[in-house]
Amino acid sequence: MTLDDLPTPSFVIDTARLEANIARMIARAQVLGVSLRPHGKTPKCAEIGLRLAAGGGLCTSTLLEAERYFAAGVADLFYAVALTPAKAARAAALVAKGADLKCLIDDPGGLQGIAEAARAAGVTLRLLIEVAADDYRSGVTLNGDSLEQLAAAIAAHDGLRLVGVMSYGGASYGLRPSEAAALAEHHRSTLVTAAARLRAAGHEMRIVSFGSTPAVLHAKTLSGVTEVRCGIYAFQDLFQAAIGACEIGDIAGSVLTEVISRQPWNNRFVIDAGGLALSKDRSTAATKCDAGFGRICDAETGALIGDLYVQTTSQELGLVTSLSGATLDMADFPVGRRLRVLPNHADMTAAAYSAYHLINDDGAVTGGLERFNGW
Amino acid sequence: MTLDDLPTPSFVIDTARLEANIARMIARAQVLGVSLRPHGKTPKCAEIGLRLAAGGGLCTSTLLEAERYFAAGVADLFYAVALTPAKAARAAALVAKGADLKCLIDDPGGLQGIAEAARAAGVTLRLLIEVAADDYRSGVTLNGDSLEQLAAAIAAHDGLRLVGVMSYGGASYGLRPSEAAALAEHHRSTLVTAAARLRAAGHEMRIVSFGSTPAVLHAKTLSGVTEVRCGIYAFQDLFQAAIGACEIGDIAGSVLTEVISRQPWNNRFVIDAGGLALSKDRSTAATKCDAGFGRICDAETGALIGDLYVQTTSQELGLVTSLSGATLDMADFPVGRRLRVLPNHADMTAAAYSAYHLINDDGAVTGGLERFNGW
Repeated sequence: MTLDDLPTPSFVIDTARLEANIARMIARAQVLGVSLRPHGKTPKCAEIGLRLAAGGGLCTSTLLEAERYFAAGVADLFYAVALTPAKAARAAALVAKGADLKCLIDDPGGLQGIAEAARAAGVTLRLLIEVAADDYRSGVTLNGDSLEQLAAAIAAHDGLRLVGVMSYGGASYGLRPSEAAALAEHHRSTLVTAAARLRAAGHEMRIVSFGSTPAVLHAKTLSGVTEVRCGIYAFQDLFQAAIGACEIGDIAGSVLTEVISRQPWNNRFVIDAGGLALSKDRSTAATKCDAGFGRICDAETGALIGDLYVQTTSQELGLVTSLSGATLDMADFPVGRRLRVLPNHADMTAAAYSAYHLINDDGAVTGGLERFNGW
Repeated sequence: MTLDDLPTPSFVIDTARLEANIARMIARAQVLGVSLRPHGKTPKCAEIGLRLAAGGGLCTSTLLEAERYFAAGVADLFYAVALTPAKAARAAALVAKGADLKCLIDDPGGLQGIAEAARAAGVTLRLLIEVAADDYRSGVTLNGDSLEQLAAAIAAHDGLRLVGVMSYGGASYGLRPSEAAALAEHHRSTLVTAAARLRAAGHEMRIVSFGSTPAVLHAKTLSGVTEVRCGIYAFQDLFQAAIGACEIGDIAGSVLTEVISRQPWNNRFVIDAGGLALSKDRSTAATKCDAGFGRICDAETGALIGDLYVQTTSQELGLVTSLSGATLDMADFPVGRRLRVLPNHADMTAAAYSAYHLINDDGAVTGGLERFNGW
């Protein structure tokens, strides 16, 4: 089976690049002396999740991911978005089935309801506290004694147990490597401080968890951190390449498309991958490597074709032209020619698909995998 | 069943608003004296498609939509993205099953393969030519004789039959009402010219089709046009409100979410609707009504809450604060409180969901509908 046999648009994964990306991050975690807890939110796929976990655990961004990865055989799971009473029964049910599931909290507001759900299911829900090392996302502030108050509130509830702290260095996505290293060090020291304060208050701190692919790649040391959570490294994308977290040649996930019409008088052609097939993510716009809605590759080799990119999208159409304004030779792009589009943000682009097609170095299709979306 | 019984995030549709939007566009088409061919790409839902078609036809952006709407009982269909040889067998199969399916072409490059697929299926594929009235999307230019050449090429193939012309006034999305009216008139006159030229060349022109919700809403006359294609009007969104194509109170589709944590020191709280639940669409950024990633409503009434909006997103989190910087009273937003988010672009946001939940004026859940995604 070849790429010509697949419908378009489709999401294809270059397995050699995927394996190289996985190996690189495993080596990186070993250098840093920390456990790697890969984030399952990028692939949302049982087989890739198992490959990423490599006998260890996974991180998830939804309870659906946790359920699916547990069903696939991964028991050590961390649902890294704040748990609420409305979702606690579902988390507790997964623990009751045998999952070694950890959940996240940073606000005492939901603790009562969460504890009730745990007790109703006859289980103990283990919680990590999210620490706000910066203003990027959520987390409890280290100013004042909010941290100790939250830990004490958790400890006061039967059915809940505090097991660690975490932070998310997502701000590293907007930084140069040297700045990302500084951000990683700030998060590391913040996490170590938080864990020390909680240990001093009598809490066990088994897990000190830090995340985001670029921050982990650029960190000088993660002393005191027990595990890192990274996801996008498996697929990589144009944004990660733009900020120096990978090379364009590392990008493992791309969208197979075909030329559907040409407008030589506008120096462009049209492909059947638009806003839904590529996503509306424009993260590269904030970098020096603005790639519109994606860069164009040869379908079989995966090599960039000149500086072609998707300039604009409608729901199902992408308009392709040259970043530099070079004149396209339309004879190179007949109607029906297959191409691949490298995405700005793999997490967003992959979400449009319910399946992945696997290809090898020669562009041969070697298999297919189911992807699960939703919540 | 109430909104409190639904999981979050979910996509909910206010049926009273949906019905009012449908009625308004039916009335608009009657004033203009044209047939309304609603676009099924917005709902991608059999029941809503049937309601929109109201015994008439639908437009689709994918062959999957055409197949699903045909299975639901809509026979008169127009797949309004350029057909290619690789997709022609699937289109021909639908015609062979009895669908009154029309397809689109604007480049002669694929005609040979398309005609072969039609003949192999023993059917005639009826085609409309897309005319490039402007540079917004695709279409054949009216300069020179490309139009007549394409029509002659279609007529020369057994298995193909030319039945009309169409254009898409998508550029109206970036225009003020008076400018959108001028754009509609330019498209109208271009379509009428194209149809007259093709009639003069001996081709039957049964369909002269024009599209985009804002262009149709603002058109002064569509004399010579036989049908209009509009989709977003059914759901509406913040972008349509920003360009004057609807009021915020007309927006029928929204994302149900819950508060998952609060950061009073940052004057914001966190909801469980992020980049996947809302999409990364930032179309309102180009208007005077930039709404970030969406505006916040009361879950039950659907009324805007102050000037709260989703400022930034992670994959599964949205950070909510005030557009004007007003101080939030966190007591109003306890963990677990349900809210709704009005989307920037309904087509993109709805695509994250495999189901819709229907609600009435009181916020009571009255039913659920399946949505189909993919291609």
